[in-house]
Amino acid sequence: MTTTADGSGALSFDDPQLLAFLPMLYVAWADGGLDEAELRTICAQTAALLEQECGTALGRWVDPERPPGAADLQRMLAAIRAAAGDLSKTERLSLAELGIEVARAHGVEPGPHEVAALASLESALGVVGSEAARELLSTTRPGLAASPPAETFQPERMNELLEPDHRDLRFRLRAFLSRPEFAYDYELPRDNYRERVFEWTRALAAEGFGALSFPERYGGAGDVGAFVAAFETLGFHDLSLMVKFGVQFGLFGGSIEQLGTAKHHRRYLRDLGSLELPGCFAMTETGHGSNVADLETVARFDQATRAFEIETPTDYARKDYIGNAAAHARLATVFAQLEIEGQRYGVHAFLVPIRGLDGETLPNVRIADCGPKLGLEGVDNGRLWFDRVRIPYDNLLDSFGSILEDGSYSSPIASPSKRFFTMLGTLIGGRVSIALAAHSVARSALTIAIRYGASRRQFGPSGEAETVVLDYRTHKRRLMPRLATTYALNFALRELAADYAAPPGGDRRELEARAAGLKAFSTWHATDTVQTARECCGGQGYLVVNRLATLKADSDVFTTFEGDNTVLLQLLAKALLTGYRRQFSEMNLLRLARYLAGELATRVTELNPVVTHATDDDHLLDPDFQIGALRWREDQLLAALARRLKRRIDRGMETFDAIIDCQDHMVTTAHAHVERQIVESFEKAIEKAPAGPERDALSRLRSLFALHRIEADRGWFQEQGYLAGSKAKAVRKLVNKLCDRVRPDALPLVDAFGIPDELLAAPIAVAE
Amino acid sequence: MTTTADGSGALSFDDPQLLAFLPMLYVAWADGGLDEAELRTICAQTAALLEQECGTALGRWVDPERPPGAADLQRMLAAIRAAAGDLSKTERLSLAELGIEVARAHGVEPGPHEVAALASLESALGVVGSEAARELLSTTRPGLAASPPAETFQPERMNELLEPDHRDLRFRLRAFLSRPEFAYDYELPRDNYRERVFEWTRALAAEGFGALSFPERYGGAGDVGAFVAAFETLGFHDLSLMVKFGVQFGLFGGSIEQLGTAKHHRRYLRDLGSLELPGCFAMTETGHGSNVADLETVARFDQATRAFEIETPTDYARKDYIGNAAAHARLATVFAQLEIEGQRYGVHAFLVPIRGLDGETLPNVRIADCGPKLGLEGVDNGRLWFDRVRIPYDNLLDSFGSILEDGSYSSPIASPSKRFFTMLGTLIGGRVSIALAAHSVARSALTIAIRYGASRRQFGPSGEAETVVLDYRTHKRRLMPRLATTYALNFALRELAADYAAPPGGDRRELEARAAGLKAFSTWHATDTVQTARECCGGQGYLVVNRLATLKADSDVFTTFEGDNTVLLQLLAKALLTGYRRQFSEMNLLRLARYLAGELATRVTELNPVVTHATDDDHLLDPDFQIGALRWREDQLLAALARRLKRRIDRGMETFDAIIDCQDHMVTTAHAHVERQIVESFEKAIEKAPAGPERDALSRLRSLFALHRIEADRGWFQEQGYLAGSKAKAVRKLVNKLCDRVRPDALPLVDAFGIPDELLAAPIAVAE
Repeated sequence: MTTTADGSGALSFDDPQLLAFLPMLYVAWADGGLDEAELRTICAQTAALLEQECGTALGRWVDPERPPGAADLQRMLAAIRAAAGDLSKTERLSLAELGIEVARAHGVEPGPHEVAALASLESALGVVGSEAARELLSTTRPGLAASPPAETFQPERMNELLEPDHRDLRFRLRAFLSRPEFAYDYELPRDNYRERVFEWTRALAAEGFGALSFPERYGGAGDVGAFVAAFETLGFHDLSLMVKFGVQFGLFGGSIEQLGTAKHHRRYLRDLGSLELPGCFAMTETGHGSNVADLETVARFDQATRAFEIETPTDYARKDYIGNAAAHARLATVFAQLEIEGQRYGVHAFLVPIRGLDGETLPNVRIADCGPKLGLEGVDNGRLWFDRVRIPYDNLLDSFGSILEDGSYSSPIASPSKRFFTMLGTLIGGRVSIALAAHSVARSALTIAIRYGASRRQFGPSGEAETVVLDYRTHKRRLMPRLATTYALNFALRELAADYAAPPGGDRRELEARAAGLKAFSTWHATDTVQTARECCGGQGYLVVNRLATLKADSDVFTTFEGDNTVLLQLLAKALLTGYRRQFSEMNLLRLARYLAGELATRVTELNPVVTHATDDDHLLDPDFQIGALRWREDQLLAALARRLKRRIDRGMETFDAIIDCQDHMVTTAHAHVERQIVESFEKAIEKAPAGPERDALSRLRSLFALHRIEADRGWFQEQGYLAGSKAKAVRKLVNKLCDRVRPDALPLVDAFGIPDELLAAPIAVAE
Repeated sequence: MTTTADGSGALSFDDPQLLAFLPMLYVAWADGGLDEAELRTICAQTAALLEQECGTALGRWVDPERPPGAADLQRMLAAIRAAAGDLSKTERLSLAELGIEVARAHGVEPGPHEVAALASLESALGVVGSEAARELLSTTRPGLAASPPAETFQPERMNELLEPDHRDLRFRLRAFLSRPEFAYDYELPRDNYRERVFEWTRALAAEGFGALSFPERYGGAGDVGAFVAAFETLGFHDLSLMVKFGVQFGLFGGSIEQLGTAKHHRRYLRDLGSLELPGCFAMTETGHGSNVADLETVARFDQATRAFEIETPTDYARKDYIGNAAAHARLATVFAQLEIEGQRYGVHAFLVPIRGLDGETLPNVRIADCGPKLGLEGVDNGRLWFDRVRIPYDNLLDSFGSILEDGSYSSPIASPSKRFFTMLGTLIGGRVSIALAAHSVARSALTIAIRYGASRRQFGPSGEAETVVLDYRTHKRRLMPRLATTYALNFALRELAADYAAPPGGDRRELEARAAGLKAFSTWHATDTVQTARECCGGQGYLVVNRLATLKADSDVFTTFEGDNTVLLQLLAKALLTGYRRQFSEMNLLRLARYLAGELATRVTELNPVVTHATDDDHLLDPDFQIGALRWREDQLLAALARRLKRRIDRGMETFDAIIDCQDHMVTTAHAHVERQIVESFEKAIEKAPAGPERDALSRLRSLFALHRIEADRGWFQEQGYLAGSKAKAVRKLVNKLCDRVRPDALPLVDAFGIPDELLAAPIAVAE
C-alpha cells in the first residue's frame, strides 16, 4: 500500500461490503479523531460480527495507523451524497439506514449480518444517527421554529398603562426631540458639543419645557409633575442635554424657587426659565461630597453693610463637579456656612454672580474646567473658588433663615438639624428625576438589546439556519428578568412622581426616604442593564453608533450624583428604623432602635412548615406568596438590625461605630424594603388595569420579577428557614419557565416603551 | 408671654432649677423636634419627679405649643458652653452630669430630687448622654483610630511571589513605559491618538518587545512566555497601545508564525517584528462573530494560474472590527472558506495585501473605518471587503492545508472538524493574553480605589475628624473580596501562562479549555472591579484624569473579543463533559454525556451531617473545607448536567436543543470549575511560598476568596444540603471578619502589584 503526500492510504470503494459502512466511517473520521483504543475496538467488534478479519477492506479503513486523508474523506462524502440522491428529503434516517441506501444505490443488498453489524456499530459510536445523517446530506430539520413574536397585546395600550400621566406633553416632547436638529452627532469636539447642548437647552426653553414647574406668572405651567415627565422623556435622548436641562431648571431654578422668597422669584424666575439667565447649583465641594452639613465655604455677614462675604477657605473647599459652571452659568446658588458675628448658623444658600453678560469671569471668582469625564461631555462641569466675594443681603435665599434688621438670625425652624434637613429635602426633586431618567436609560438599552437579539443569529443545529440569539437560554436569562425589573420599577416610579408632584403639605419624610431608595435601585438597575445589553450585543454594542456605549458612559455617574447610592440606602434604613418620624439623626435613631428591637421582634410571624415546602406553580405564582415573602424578609431584616444596633449600644459602643458595624445589614434592609415596595406597587397597578392580554403580560412580569428577586436571595431565605431547599429549587426552575413565557412578548414589551426611532437611533435596533 | 418675630418665646434662664436641665432641653429641641405626645410625657414625668406643676419655668420649656426659637437655642448653647468651661476635656460625661456642672457653674447645687429627675429624663429621652454632651462641647472622642496601615509584610517580597517569571523584562518594560514620551494625553483627537499609539508601538518594536516570541533568526527571543509577560505589563499602561501591540505581534504575527510555514517566516517575520510591515488579523465577519466555522468569505483556487480569488459574497460577510485595518495595516491575514473546483475545504488563512507602501488602498479592496467606539480609540478598527482580489498560491498559510501540484487538496489533519479546531487552537495565545491584561486592569483599578479610599474621609462621629471611607463596612465589603479575588486569580493565571509557554507537544485541549474559562472569569472580574472602583471613588472616579473612566471604557470589550465569555464558558463545559478527550463537537458531547451520567453519579460523595453543620472558624478557614466545598459543587453540577442532557436526548430531543435547554446549567458548571481551579492554584502557590508574613497574608486572602464564593452561592449549597442554614450564616459572618482582617493589609497588598506611579497616573492615587 502506498501513501500519498497528504498521508492518505490508497483506498478504494471496490469492496461492495464497504458501501453500507461509508456513512459511519465518514462520521467516525470526520468527527475529529477517535482515539486508537476505540478504533481497535470498533474494528474488532465489526470484524467479529461480520465474521471477517481486521485485515479486510473494511478493517483497513479503521486502522489508526493509516488514517484516511482529506481527499479520501471528500471522496467518501461525495459517494454518500451521490448515492443518497433523492433521499435528501428523508428525515430521521439513521446512519445504518443511510448506509443500506448507499449500498442499494450501488446495487448491493446488505445481508442480515451486515445489517446487525451496522446497528451495533452505530450504537458503539454513540452518535445520534439521524442528526449525523442530516449533516451529511445537508437536509433541514423539522420543528423548533424560533419563538414567534406573539402580538398578543397592543403595545400602544400597554404604553397607556406604563405612562398614564402627561401623555400629551410626553408625545409633544418626543416629537420635538425627533426633529432633525436634535439628531446625534458622535464626532463633535467637546467645546462644540457643549455649545450644541446649550443651544438644544435654549430650544427646549423656548418651547416652554424648562419653566413647566414654575408659577404661571413667571412663564411656567405650575406643574411639577409635567417637569418631571419632561425630564424623564429627555432620558431617551442625549443625556448631556437632560443633565444640562436638569441643572438649569431643576437644581438652579428649584433652589431659587424653593429656598428663595417672593423677591427672588420676581427677580429671577422668568429669565431663568427662558435661559436668559444661565445658572448653576454649587453645593458639592471637593472635600465634601455626601457630607453636606460639613462643607467649608463660608458666608460671613457684615451688619454694617448688610452684605455677605463668600469665601473658599481651602482648596479642599472649592466647589466641584458643578454642572454649567465651566462655560455658561452667570449666577450660582452657593451653599455656605452662614456666619454672623463669629457664630455659625449652618448651611444656607446664596446667589453669587460668577460671570458678566459677556461671559467674563467676575472679580475674586475663579473658575476651572473639571476636564474630560467618562461621559456627559456635553455638560460643562467646573470648579469654583471664591476669594471674599461680596454679595448684598438680598442674595441670601431666605425662606428657611434670615437676618433681622438688628443683625440677629431668625428662622421659622428653630432646630438647626431640622432646618438643615428641611433645606436638603428640597433636593428630593433631583432624586425623583434621576430615578426616572435611569428608568429611561434602562428602557433604551433593553429596546436595543432585545431588538438586536431577536434578529441576530449565531450557531445552530447542523445543516440549518443559525438560531436567533434571543432564543438561547443564557440570553433569555440575561434579558428577560431585567425586562421584568424595568416593568416592575415603572409603577413604583409612577407613584413616586405623582406623590412628589402632589401639592406639598403633610409629612414629606416618607417621600424623601422613598425617593432615596428608588433612586439607588433605579440607577443601579440602569448601570447593570446597560452593561448587560452592551455585552449581549457583542462587538456591535461597542460601537458608539449603536448608542449603548454612550448610554453606559453618560449614565454611569447616576449612581453617584444626587446622592451616592450607598449613602442613600443608609438614609432609607435609618428612616425605616425610626418609622419616618424622625430626622435622620443618629441619636434619634438609637432611641428608636431600642424601641423597635422590642416591637418588631413580636411582629415577625411564625413559619408554617407546609408553606415553606410548597412548590406548586399556583402557589409560587400567587402575588400573595411573592409579596408575603418579600415583606417577611424586610420585617425580619429590620427587626434583626434594630436588635443588633441595640446590643452594640448596650455594650457601650458609640452609635456611629455601631452603625458602621451594621452598615451592610442596613444596606441589605433598605434593598429588601425597596424590592417589596416595587412588587406591591406593581401588583396594585395590575389590579387596577382592565382585564385583557396587557394585564396577563404584566402579571407574568410581576411573577418573574418577584421570583427572580427571591431566587437571587434564596441563600438568605433558606438560612432563615423560610424556603425549604426543594422550594428554592422550584423557584429557580420557575424563573427559567417564566423567561420562556415572557420571551414571545419581548418585542411588543419593548415597543410599548414607545421610544421613537429617531431617539433610539441604533442601526442594530431600528429598521432602516 | 410675647413671641418674637422668629417664633421664640421670651424665655429666660432666671429659674436656677432650669440650669441643670439646659443640656437636656437643648438636645431635645435641637435634635429636630420631639412629637407632642413625647413632650407632654416628658413634661408630666419631670413635673411629677420634681413635685411641681407643668406651668413652671421648666414646664414652659417643653410646651409643644411654644417651641423655642433659633436665637433661644443659640443662647442655650452659649450658656452651656460657657458654664462647661474647663470641662471640655472631660470625656464620657452624661447629659445629666453635664447639667449638674452647668448649675454648679452658676452657684446652684441640685438637690437629690433634681438629680433623680435628670437621670430619669435622660433615660426617657433615650439619647446616649456622653455622645450628646461631646457634641455640645465639641470635644473629641477617645479610641477607634482608623485602621493602621500594617506594614506587616514587604510589598517587594510579595511582588516576587506574584510575578515570579520574567522579572527583568517586566522591570525593563515598566521603566520604559514610565518615560515622559509615554505619558497619557487624554485630549488628543482620535486621528492623532491613533498616530501616537502607532509611534509607541514602533518604539516598543525598536526595543525588541514586539518580536519576543519569534525565533531568534528573525530578530526575536524565541520566548513565548516573555511576549505574554510584556503584554500583561502593557495592561498597566494605555490599553489601546496594548491592543495595537497584540494585534500586530500576537494575532497577525502569530497567524504567520503558526499557520504559515518556513517560506512565510523567512519572508515576513523580521519586518513584522520591527513594524516595517504593519498587518491585521481579519477573521471576524459582521454576520459571524463567534461562529467562525460558518464565515462566508471565499477563497477560490484557480489551478490554471495557481492563484486564489478572495471574495466577500455579501455585505454581511465583510470583515468587521479588524484592529489596525482602518489606518495602518498593509497586509491582512484573511480567514476564508477554501474552495477548489466548487468543493469546500473549510476555513483557511490567506495573506492579502490591502495597502501599498504609500498607504493607498489596493485595487478591489474596500476599507472603512468602524467609527467611534466606547473605548480603545487609539486602535484603528476597520471593515474590509474583497472584490475578487487575486493572490498567488504562496499567500495561503499552509501549515494545516495545502494544494498539491495536481490541484488536489492535502492536509496533515484529515478530519475537517479536527483541522478547524487545531487551527482555532492557535488563538489560545490571544485568550491567555487577554486574561492577563484584564488582570492588570483589575490591579490598576484596585490600586486607585484602595489608595483613595484609605485617604478620603466622609462623615464621622460628632465632633471628630471624618472617618476614612475604607473603614466603612460597606466600602470594605466592596473592595476587600475583589482584592482577594485578584490575588487568587493571579496564581491560576501564572500557571496558565507557564503551561502555554511550555514547549508544545502533548494534548493542548485541556489548556485551551482552561484558557477559555480563565479568560471569561478574568475579564468579567475586571469589568466588575473597575465599575466598583469607579463607584467607590464617587465623582473623582468619573473624571478621566483619575484613569478609571478610561480603564472602564477600554477594557469593556474584553468580555466580548477573543471569544464571547458566554460562548467560552460553554466551550469549557463541553470540554468538561467530554473529559477533554474530544473536540467540542456536539455528537461527541452526546456520546460522552451518556457515559458521564453514569460515571459521575457514583463519584459524588455522601454528605456528612456533622460537617454540614460545623461552623467553627478553624473548620471554615481550613483550605480542605474550602477546596472540598468548591470541588463538590463542581462534581455535582457536572453530573447533574450530564444526566439532564442524557434525559433530554433519550426523550428524542435534538442535541442542539438539549444543549440550549441546559445552557444556563452549562455556564454555571463552567463557572464552578474555574472557581475551584483558582482556589487550588492559589493554595498550591501558598504551600510553596516560604513561611512568613507574606504567606500568612496570602492565606487570609485565599480564605476570603473561597468563602466569598461559597457565600455568594450559599443558596445552591443549602438547596443541596451541603450547608446547613447555621453554617451558611457562619460563612457570611466570617467573610465580614476576613474583610476586617485584610483591611490593614490593603495598602501594602496593592503596593505589591508594583505599578509605577507614572503608569497609574491618577492624582487621587499617586503622591504628588
